[in-house]
Amino acid sequence: MSKLVIVGTVAFDAIETPFGKTDKILGGAATFIGLAASQFHVDAAAVSIVGGDFPQEYLDLLSERGIDISGVEVIKEGKTFFWSGKYHNDMNTRDTLATELNVLADFNPKVPEDYKDAEVVMLGNLHPNVQMSVLEQMDTKPKLVILDTMNFWMDCALEELHNVIKKVDVITINDEEARQLTGEYSLVVAARKIHDMGPQYVVIKKGEHGALLFHDDNVFYAPALPLEEVFDPTGAGDTFAGGFAGYLAKSGDLSFENMKNAVIYGSTLASFCVEKFGTERMVNLKPNEVHKRLQQFKQLTQFEIELA
Amino acid sequence: MSKLVIVGTVAFDAIETPFGKTDKILGGAATFIGLAASQFHVDAAAVSIVGGDFPQEYLDLLSERGIDISGVEVIKEGKTFFWSGKYHNDMNTRDTLATELNVLADFNPKVPEDYKDAEVVMLGNLHPNVQMSVLEQMDTKPKLVILDTMNFWMDCALEELHNVIKKVDVITINDEEARQLTGEYSLVVAARKIHDMGPQYVVIKKGEHGALLFHDDNVFYAPALPLEEVFDPTGAGDTFAGGFAGYLAKSGDLSFENMKNAVIYGSTLASFCVEKFGTERMVNLKPNEVHKRLQQFKQLTQFEIELA
Repeated sequence: MSKLVIVGTVAFDAIETPFGKTDKILGGAATFIGLAASQFHVDAAAVSIVGGDFPQEYLDLLSERGIDISGVEVIKEGKTFFWSGKYHNDMNTRDTLATELNVLADFNPKVPEDYKDAEVVMLGNLHPNVQMSVLEQMDTKPKLVILDTMNFWMDCALEELHNVIKKVDVITINDEEARQLTGEYSLVVAARKIHDMGPQYVVIKKGEHGALLFHDDNVFYAPALPLEEVFDPTGAGDTFAGGFAGYLAKSGDLSFENMKNAVIYGSTLASFCVEKFGTERMVNLKPNEVHKRLQQFKQLTQFEIELA
Repeated sequence: MSKLVIVGTVAFDAIETPFGKTDKILGGAATFIGLAASQFHVDAAAVSIVGGDFPQEYLDLLSERGIDISGVEVIKEGKTFFWSGKYHNDMNTRDTLATELNVLADFNPKVPEDYKDAEVVMLGNLHPNVQMSVLEQMDTKPKLVILDTMNFWMDCALEELHNVIKKVDVITINDEEARQLTGEYSLVVAARKIHDMGPQYVVIKKGEHGALLFHDDNVFYAPALPLEEVFDPTGAGDTFAGGFAGYLAKSGDLSFENMKNAVIYGSTLASFCVEKFGTERMVNLKPNEVHKRLQQFKQLTQFEIELA
């Protein structure tokens, strides 16, 4: 088993969907990534920052699942990062209602000493300079660095984003963002251009349409499980990334064939995440439920045409 | 091997895409369905209508591939159905520039005597009353009736459409049309509602995002092959349906497991169709190319997670 470092936000979210709305609940990329990765009982540490307003029980939730939180800085006099959004009826688009950076504005990530030799680093969606700072703190070169990002950084920190993209092995990005980053409509062409920017592996997330994994001339397509209803998509992408990173950290096998499995685990966990508001479903997720859904994924995609 | 009856248009298309434009070329649902089904060397007959302006070489093209064209009526003094469309840059949306029904306006389909005992009937996109007329001409109840339709008939002949939907085993329909037909955004819920309208099997085509096959509580997801570029999407849905129907007619096995294979064959053939204008790619398609692409589909979707 490899050690896993996770950097990302730990936050308050307030969410409105056609099914209802929440007050401030637990959210943030590192939270969703950590909860997903914890399904694999990995040796993981979260690197993040919160304010004095952040409940201890939320931090306990991560540490009870074996996530080292010594790298989660608490600024007593500060306020926790807050995001609020409202999803449209199709659940594929959303409006951001509020973004309060608060303590995140001056976040200098600090990787715990024990994790500076981690083999796997998961750079959750954050300013590219923060992501880069984590990489620079590593004593040994990680075997696998995974980066998640979003269009916001393409708009306001493109050069810094390119600098960190150069340094990573895997990028996870959604389809519209892949198009924005490359100016290419075809995802095959976009993936090749991103590959040329640095990452050997490109994962393009397509929401309800699944995810594509590209590596050289190889492609793998993991569908999303068709769901009766998507209750709240918040955190689905982070959960996907956390499942992907957690599975690879656990197995230690970084081959393309095993990365296919990592994509399936990521998709499987993401399919749970969207069933309830925020982290609710992930917090209560049982191993036998995961196992059953993996079987559903097999039935969903496997066929028996015999080919010579 | 089962006999297969195909009803649909045989037509002229004029197509404009970001890659170029064509004059009047060979098109029509029955043409694409027939070309796809002919890959399986099935015993098939096309039921359609053309005008005196329709070149004999186009008809020969179908009969050379073993499609019985005795059910393709030629109205010497009439003109062939003509459709013209222009695709937008994303290739997912198009404007219809012209629709000239011509001989199609008075089409009374005539199933050849030899095919009134066919086990498989493929009702290509046409007025639901024409589709119904074909069903009524069958002497024996077919083992499998597959219906393809589109939003146009929901707008102008919804009651007639519901009447024929009641009579079929499989419906193939695209995602937006499934939503329109049911008023449901979730494709899982939409499929269940369509199931309640009659068809035991519901295939929802999602273009570049693949296709879903629903049966009771079972779902199968065939991705579309990620392509560098889609040259011309015209006929892709018909080609999918033709591959699906042709494979099932050939194998005679109508189980859900085998229908998964039929969906994969349909997707595979459709992935060729879009590579060139109109029927060009399908006319020149070689069996070894199909075999190679099926292998790509396997690599694209198969994974090795061992589950107890």
